[in-house]
Amino acid sequence: MSNLSIFFVFCFFSTLSHAIEFNFCVGDPSLPRGSQGYACKDPAKVTTDYFVYTGFRGEKTPNNVFGNNVTLAFSNVFPTFNGLGISLARLDFAVGGVIPIHSHCTSEILNLVKGSIIAGFIDTNNIAYYNRLEVGDVMVFPQAMLHFQINVGKSPATAYVSLNGANPTLQLTPTSLFAENLPADIA
Amino acid sequence: MSNLSIFFVFCFFSTLSHAIEFNFCVGDPSLPRGSQGYACKDPAKVTTDYFVYTGFRGEKTPNNVFGNNVTLAFSNVFPTFNGLGISLARLDFAVGGVIPIHSHCTSEILNLVKGSIIAGFIDTNNIAYYNRLEVGDVMVFPQAMLHFQINVGKSPATAYVSLNGANPTLQLTPTSLFAENLPADIA
Amino acid sequence: MSNLSIFFVFCFFSTLSHAIEFNFCVGDPSLPRGSQGYACKDPAKVTTDYFVYTGFRGEKTPNNVFGNNVTLAFSNVFPTFNGLGISLARLDFAVGGVIPIHSHCTSEILNLVKGSIIAGFIDTNNIAYYNRLEVGDVMVFPQAMLHFQINVGKSPATAYVSLNGANPTLQLTPTSLFAENLPADIA
Amino acid sequence: MSNLSIFFVFCFFSTLSHAIEFNFCVGDPSLPRGSQGYACKDPAKVTTDYFVYTGFRGEKTPNNVFGNNVTLAFSNVFPTFNGLGISLARLDFAVGGVIPIHSHCTSEILNLVKGSIIAGFIDTNNIAYYNRLEVGDVMVFPQAMLHFQINVGKSPATAYVSLNGANPTLQLTPTSLFAENLPADIA
Amino acid sequence: MSNLSIFFVFCFFSTLSHAIEFNFCVGDPSLPRGSQGYACKDPAKVTTDYFVYTGFRGEKTPNNVFGNNVTLAFSNVFPTFNGLGISLARLDFAVGGVIPIHSHCTSEILNLVKGSIIAGFIDTNNIAYYNRLEVGDVMVFPQAMLHFQINVGKSPATAYVSLNGANPTLQLTPTSLFAENLPADIA
Amino acid sequence: MSNLSIFFVFCFFSTLSHAIEFNFCVGDPSLPRGSQGYACKDPAKVTTDYFVYTGFRGEKTPNNVFGNNVTLAFSNVFPTFNGLGISLARLDFAVGGVIPIHSHCTSEILNLVKGSIIAGFIDTNNIAYYNRLEVGDVMVFPQAMLHFQINVGKSPATAYVSLNGANPTLQLTPTSLFAENLPADIA
Repeated sequence: MSNLSIFFVFCFFSTLSHAIEFNFCVGDPSLPRGSQGYACKDPAKVTTDYFVYTGFRGEKTPNNVFGNNVTLAFSNVFPTFNGLGISLARLDFAVGGVIPIHSHCTSEILNLVKGSIIAGFIDTNNIAYYNRLEVGDVMVFPQAMLHFQINVGKSPATAYVSLNGANPTLQLTPTSLFAENLPADIA
Repeated sequence: MSNLSIFFVFCFFSTLSHAIEFNFCVGDPSLPRGSQGYACKDPAKVTTDYFVYTGFRGEKTPNNVFGNNVTLAFSNVFPTFNGLGISLARLDFAVGGVIPIHSHCTSEILNLVKGSIIAGFIDTNNIAYYNRLEVGDVMVFPQAMLHFQINVGKSPATAYVSLNGANPTLQLTPTSLFAENLPADIA
Repeated sequence: MSNLSIFFVFCFFSTLSHAIEFNFCVGDPSLPRGSQGYACKDPAKVTTDYFVYTGFRGEKTPNNVFGNNVTLAFSNVFPTFNGLGISLARLDFAVGGVIPIHSHCTSEILNLVKGSIIAGFIDTNNIAYYNRLEVGDVMVFPQAMLHFQINVGKSPATAYVSLNGANPTLQLTPTSLFAENLPADIA
Repeated sequence: MSNLSIFFVFCFFSTLSHAIEFNFCVGDPSLPRGSQGYACKDPAKVTTDYFVYTGFRGEKTPNNVFGNNVTLAFSNVFPTFNGLGISLARLDFAVGGVIPIHSHCTSEILNLVKGSIIAGFIDTNNIAYYNRLEVGDVMVFPQAMLHFQINVGKSPATAYVSLNGANPTLQLTPTSLFAENLPADIA
Repeated sequence: MSNLSIFFVFCFFSTLSHAIEFNFCVGDPSLPRGSQGYACKDPAKVTTDYFVYTGFRGEKTPNNVFGNNVTLAFSNVFPTFNGLGISLARLDFAVGGVIPIHSHCTSEILNLVKGSIIAGFIDTNNIAYYNRLEVGDVMVFPQAMLHFQINVGKSPATAYVSLNGANPTLQLTPTSLFAENLPADIA
Repeated sequence: MSNLSIFFVFCFFSTLSHAIEFNFCVGDPSLPRGSQGYACKDPAKVTTDYFVYTGFRGEKTPNNVFGNNVTLAFSNVFPTFNGLGISLARLDFAVGGVIPIHSHCTSEILNLVKGSIIAGFIDTNNIAYYNRLEVGDVMVFPQAMLHFQINVGKSPATAYVSLNGANPTLQLTPTSLFAENLPADIA
């Protein structure tokens, strides 16, 4: 019998004596947090349900002035993402719906699963990169680039976006220009 | 007129004099590469088409012994991901199809868009976390955990997975145990 | 004689036999670059002058529509910063001059050396943090926050800003909204 | 009306429903800390004053044996820098004043605003890189290099240094060789 | 007297006024932890003994079915490693003893100090790299590669391995395939 | 037959269609390098011998004025370490031999395999942490701390040190204070 086959035969009965504790770090917002994210919930209290997010189920009707419906699964909503450096969002567009131009410090990958949209970004040389996407198309928005999406099709559209951060800082540009507590002589 | 409104009125006509060059780094496999990824293709030759991946379009029929069809959009296939620290894959399952247990050093988020599967991972304390997922459900496989997916439904299933690495190193465990060039006395 | 004093007596005559090569990596834009920055110029050709930047010398007259004069010392201008993860800029303001609201993915520290300005940023909860600064004051703009500066004093003002990136990606928001090559039906 | 102009018209009234919490992480030394820095103070208690450091105001008279006066704005003094990966210091030199040779694991950028000094560093091949600097000159000390500054002019000098770490570990070399609690037979 | 010699003469008497606090972060498992590791024990309670690990002393007799004895010095056993990004393990092999094939997300360096073993890894192209090692030999297992060691000599063998993580996540592959709490219809 | 056992039965015959290329990045000093390390040698030319370093074999006689013999296995000597973030060195001490006080930006772990030494470091509060080590003892020198070793035993001593960097920048403090090309009026 070969040496390696010993691995298969015997290793069901034995394991290393020192278990490792940090397989995951589900965020616990009630504890002090650090600049890298939340403190970890006690792993003994983390059941399998913590690893499933069901907030993307069902229809998401765009009902705001932009004709969009954005469902974020960031670590402040789904704390299991804490420390893992990745997150998701679901974007639903009414006909003509838009996601206004914005940026964040993570890169973003959009994956169109329904409808047809134009998506694009503008680089720091003021060059725009935009495309019409069909179902199954993936578009990349490199980190920090201002980007936007517009449903130019004749039916609703749905896309999922992945971001390589657990809690991407995100600002809608024009909104931010009018912060509520700026004095009138500045804003 | 307020100070801030000056921004809106005038800044269309002027910009900073020094443009920034590194908005993205589309990989060029013909150049020497580093441990962090490919060298960058000349940005002047990067058109908008480089930012769209169309490899997920259409039907993907599982036709291997596992009953799966895995379409990877990693940076070696889609070099625009180079340096961005994120990638995608599409998983199609026949009825009863499986993705064999494996691990990688990136975290993974699975997003089920068709069918119903059981997905799970096993932590280093030998505890399994698994769930039956329905359309719209998202499941997280933290970095380095062994994980698997099985189509337990009565129809084909499709999922997308996001990984926070541009070119995740990935090994199918049992396959690797029998590397072709291992001598018989070891393997 | 103590053991430690041996260090002082003898170590002038001897050193470790293997020299280390990567003390710095002055960027060489003529070589292929990676997502992390430029390739390194041959260190044997790097003289002491490479480590001094003189571009901030003298008067900098603001003569654009914003009443500002921004001198960037980023790695594309001063390639010695390549790989070091830090950079500088000098900001000169005419009376009433402004730096329009913008963001970048590095944090920024402003150090006012002449005049008096109001500087501030807006967080993602749409709360503005702004202050009037006097000579010697330092203000922090955390990464990704939209921020701005306005010379509210009666004389010109000068500040230096430090950023923890060698080549910060930077976008003037309103300018970018009107990328030159966006088609009229989108823009 | 174009699609993009919708952004300007309407987005003042609406925003994404899930606010992001981690815009900054002002350190709270009273909480447990991690290897990456302090835990965050409750953001609701962080006012705009937290973002301004006034410790550099006014004259700083060198009155120690080196003829220097070093004012550090590191995160242990100014906890707003916590987690941001950047910090500052002000260096004041009497005529003939020196900053003794030392090193730290962050890179450092010196910005001379008054007087004339010689600054330099020594690389691991024992090569010195030094220059005489005038007002407005910037010199770079790459990470881990031993470096020093000497006021060789006929008047006091002032410089600001930026470091890409919130709390750079710093050791004055010769001082450290004589730690107080080393036993006599070692030291 | 030269300027630099002033450093030697005087700097024993004076130092910078602001001490730095984060020289190390010995983990305190009783405090909330983050995704990057444990919170720090109060440094005032950290004595010199905390920096020495004695768990590798003496003979280590392999007495499990694999004929190995693995002594891990990871941060959960030796919390001084917390936050330092490095750890160690001692591997003792009986004649014919093996370390079953496994992987982790840190790189590993093996340093053989007694006996003779065959060690190897299998890359993602299913190519095996293996060698017979003698005392003094060092072998590298790049991050994420499945790897193994077998004592092929006629006497016991001992090796030390270094890993560039404080608490490497580690899974023995075949063991993990049979997690205890997987239902029979899956496992 | 259970679902999971299918993995064992069939997966030897099939694998994912897209191989991953970056399993390792053996440095090629003849190519342009970046701030993160060397460019990668063509993996097709990397044989199994590249992963074994034999430079630690045999006796190492200390024959310099310090009574030490330092054998560095850093990436400039053993380029397989390139990009892996870890390296090794062997330290041999004559009776009374010392490694002079020095620092580097990586953490270091010392593993004593022969003899008895005193090893220690000095933190930024000028507190020394030192211990007498016996065979099998491990001591940690946290990143950036000045540290030293002295053979206080009556026989030669040998230790291995691991560092979490592929090419740690390292300076012998007193040597560096007398760089050869500093002018006499400075040095």
